[in-house]
Amino acid sequence: MPPTPPGPFTGRSLTDLARDLRAGRTTAAELARRALDAIAGLDPALGAFVTVDPAGARAAARRADEELASGADRGSLHGVPVAVKDLIDVAGLPCTMGSRHFAGHVAEADAACVTLLREAGAVIVGKTTTHEFAYGPTGDRSANGPSRNPRDPGRMSGGSSGGSAAAVAAGLVPLALGTDTGGSVRIPAALCGIAGFKPAYDAIPAGGVFPLSRSFDHVGVLAADPYDCLVAYRHLAAGGPPPAGSGGGEAEDVRVAWLDPTALSVCDPRVVQVARAAAGVVTEELRLPGGLAEELRETYAAIQRAEAAAVHADRVAEAPELFDPEVLDRLRAAMRVPAWAYVRAVEGRPALAKTVEALFDGHDVLALPTVPLVAPPLDRREIELDGRTVAVRAALLALTSPWNVLGLPALTVPAGSVDGLPVGLQLVCRPGREDLLFRLAAR
Amino acid sequence: MPPTPPGPFTGRSLTDLARDLRAGRTTAAELARRALDAIAGLDPALGAFVTVDPAGARAAARRADEELASGADRGSLHGVPVAVKDLIDVAGLPCTMGSRHFAGHVAEADAACVTLLREAGAVIVGKTTTHEFAYGPTGDRSANGPSRNPRDPGRMSGGSSGGSAAAVAAGLVPLALGTDTGGSVRIPAALCGIAGFKPAYDAIPAGGVFPLSRSFDHVGVLAADPYDCLVAYRHLAAGGPPPAGSGGGEAEDVRVAWLDPTALSVCDPRVVQVARAAAGVVTEELRLPGGLAEELRETYAAIQRAEAAAVHADRVAEAPELFDPEVLDRLRAAMRVPAWAYVRAVEGRPALAKTVEALFDGHDVLALPTVPLVAPPLDRREIELDGRTVAVRAALLALTSPWNVLGLPALTVPAGSVDGLPVGLQLVCRPGREDLLFRLAAR
Repeated sequence: MPPTPPGPFTGRSLTDLARDLRAGRTTAAELARRALDAIAGLDPALGAFVTVDPAGARAAARRADEELASGADRGSLHGVPVAVKDLIDVAGLPCTMGSRHFAGHVAEADAACVTLLREAGAVIVGKTTTHEFAYGPTGDRSANGPSRNPRDPGRMSGGSSGGSAAAVAAGLVPLALGTDTGGSVRIPAALCGIAGFKPAYDAIPAGGVFPLSRSFDHVGVLAADPYDCLVAYRHLAAGGPPPAGSGGGEAEDVRVAWLDPTALSVCDPRVVQVARAAAGVVTEELRLPGGLAEELRETYAAIQRAEAAAVHADRVAEAPELFDPEVLDRLRAAMRVPAWAYVRAVEGRPALAKTVEALFDGHDVLALPTVPLVAPPLDRREIELDGRTVAVRAALLALTSPWNVLGLPALTVPAGSVDGLPVGLQLVCRPGREDLLFRLAAR
Repeated sequence: MPPTPPGPFTGRSLTDLARDLRAGRTTAAELARRALDAIAGLDPALGAFVTVDPAGARAAARRADEELASGADRGSLHGVPVAVKDLIDVAGLPCTMGSRHFAGHVAEADAACVTLLREAGAVIVGKTTTHEFAYGPTGDRSANGPSRNPRDPGRMSGGSSGGSAAAVAAGLVPLALGTDTGGSVRIPAALCGIAGFKPAYDAIPAGGVFPLSRSFDHVGVLAADPYDCLVAYRHLAAGGPPPAGSGGGEAEDVRVAWLDPTALSVCDPRVVQVARAAAGVVTEELRLPGGLAEELRETYAAIQRAEAAAVHADRVAEAPELFDPEVLDRLRAAMRVPAWAYVRAVEGRPALAKTVEALFDGHDVLALPTVPLVAPPLDRREIELDGRTVAVRAALLALTSPWNVLGLPALTVPAGSVDGLPVGLQLVCRPGREDLLFRLAAR
């Protein structure tokens, strides 16, 4: 299908908007109106939004304009339209988790990250489509229908923060919040051709976010440009953001290792090639030590499934018919994970952390593709990849979920395209070195 | 069967021994010899010991005597013979966990609590029978045979620290170490007519102790007199012991609530009566709020079984024939606990802790029987209690395991007897108030 036409925020960074707002070339009210108009015009073909809040957005924009006019400047998000994944509570708005279980459910209070957004002066325009209960990376199983890829609306946005990625990629908003338990920010960002940042575990507070797997759930940000992810992150980080450019030096000083993704997944070689080219000169070509890929995968699966099952066991028992059948199947499988396997996975994490820590010996950042393939068609569940038939879900998650196991910061940046569809380059670092990711991305 | 005749330490407290040693009325060498002789003579009928270490004990006693003679006094355990449960590593001695899986296994290093014992000058005479892998409260399933109750060797010692309880109750040693995951110190202490103290979670370091369920495993002490438990505890507490008599005041100042045990288990009314009489005047008669008994029981079961299964899953898969069949059955059941139930139990603990904390409103100590029945005959698995047939294992654990769920300090003291068999009174407090338990026990 033909791509969605550019929206009002296509090609306009947060920095541009901030400058225009302060130069009097635009107002928060105008930005909100343009976002709302674009959503009204373009979103029916995209499915990025499940709820739009014109009245709330207009009121917030008016306040933002009044504050700016009075000299009260809240910084770079002040007056900026933002979309919030429909798994994150916004007071007074429906929060459906993409599920019929929560049809009509209205959040009573703001999630902690939404409070931070508001304190930064952002204007929340609506809630974006999530894969049902965030339990899927395809973004095409939601009570409100699939979110679609702006580059080709016949294809997946990816998920589970599919609506947030599609909304930003289509230029309907310049910034969106998502959540990432195994790649749910980075996967749709990569498939839609934008940037997505999953910070370190607990770096953005998760209060008021519906859980998928508490050990791995992260709140993250999506924007067209990686620098805008950093700008937003500075307002959302719980323990205070890393200082801009801390550590000093240029991108050239950052030691990058290219991590061979084929140890983690069957990959489309063209995707690997595009990502590898975008990574540029690296210090080292790295391959995961034997067994580590399996260990990360098994640890991820045991913990994520056990915790997801704990969240949903009552709903599965009492009202299974309200789930999407595919999500229900996954939850039923998750309920069969034995407790001893979960206990072992949890107990094994400290040793695993040491092994992964050792991957960073001699370099600061690992680079690899974000996703080993380009956006598949909607509803596709198996796909041919490098001559093999692979499960789409497993492939989508394979390169992102390892970094959730240990809560490492990871950023996806647009790297180019294959068959006209976006490819993402993923940059992973240790907590505290987030500045390096953004310095590299700027290169 | 007729009771075991009194051993050399029957009726002799740690205080008596310390006084005699320092007055020159005995020596550590003589105490060790008397312990070793008594073990050689009496233990064949008891099964309290799985390994005796005459050479090691004699050497340690000699060193203790030399130190005392030279004026280097390590305090109240100096020169005292001590037995250690065969689940706790003592360097150079076999550590079998009561299992054929560990037949011939020799510990390379001392467990942390054994190091503390040695630093206190104690003389380790041997290792005591444990229910296989500490996974049972009856004490009659061990690769080296059952430990027997000195009051009637045809009856259970209780378990899993059955050998430690029997060794102390028979006067073979004045002090023994045990472990307590759901009552494994307190149950055999009560059934054998001695005192047993399970301190707060992690109060005695658990390094070098074979795990049963890491969330609930406690190291504890057994002695004829509760005060001797306190004396030993002061040497073993990781974070430093509570100061003697801290808080000041007399036993009369301690506010005690009698907790109706029938909310937790079917009970022998005669046992309840004896324990209630021993508790004396109380501030209040308390009953657990509705549902709390079930919640404690379910939380205990889910966590204990899941963690035990995680410890043993490989052995169950690879060499099931080496397990005692009853223990194997329990482990196989434990392996079927679903992970979601474990996750919920773990996540529910903070709320449960608040509910239990509220039980202490208006009083300092909860008093209840330690075990709702007297020692059953060996191998008995069902028993008539108050007109109902109940499972022996469940009944033995019912009044002790709730306090492991939240790691509360609990002391059992001899309270009297029914049919000539010992009854224990259990005193439970909040961490930091251990002194109250001992003050009450002295009354």
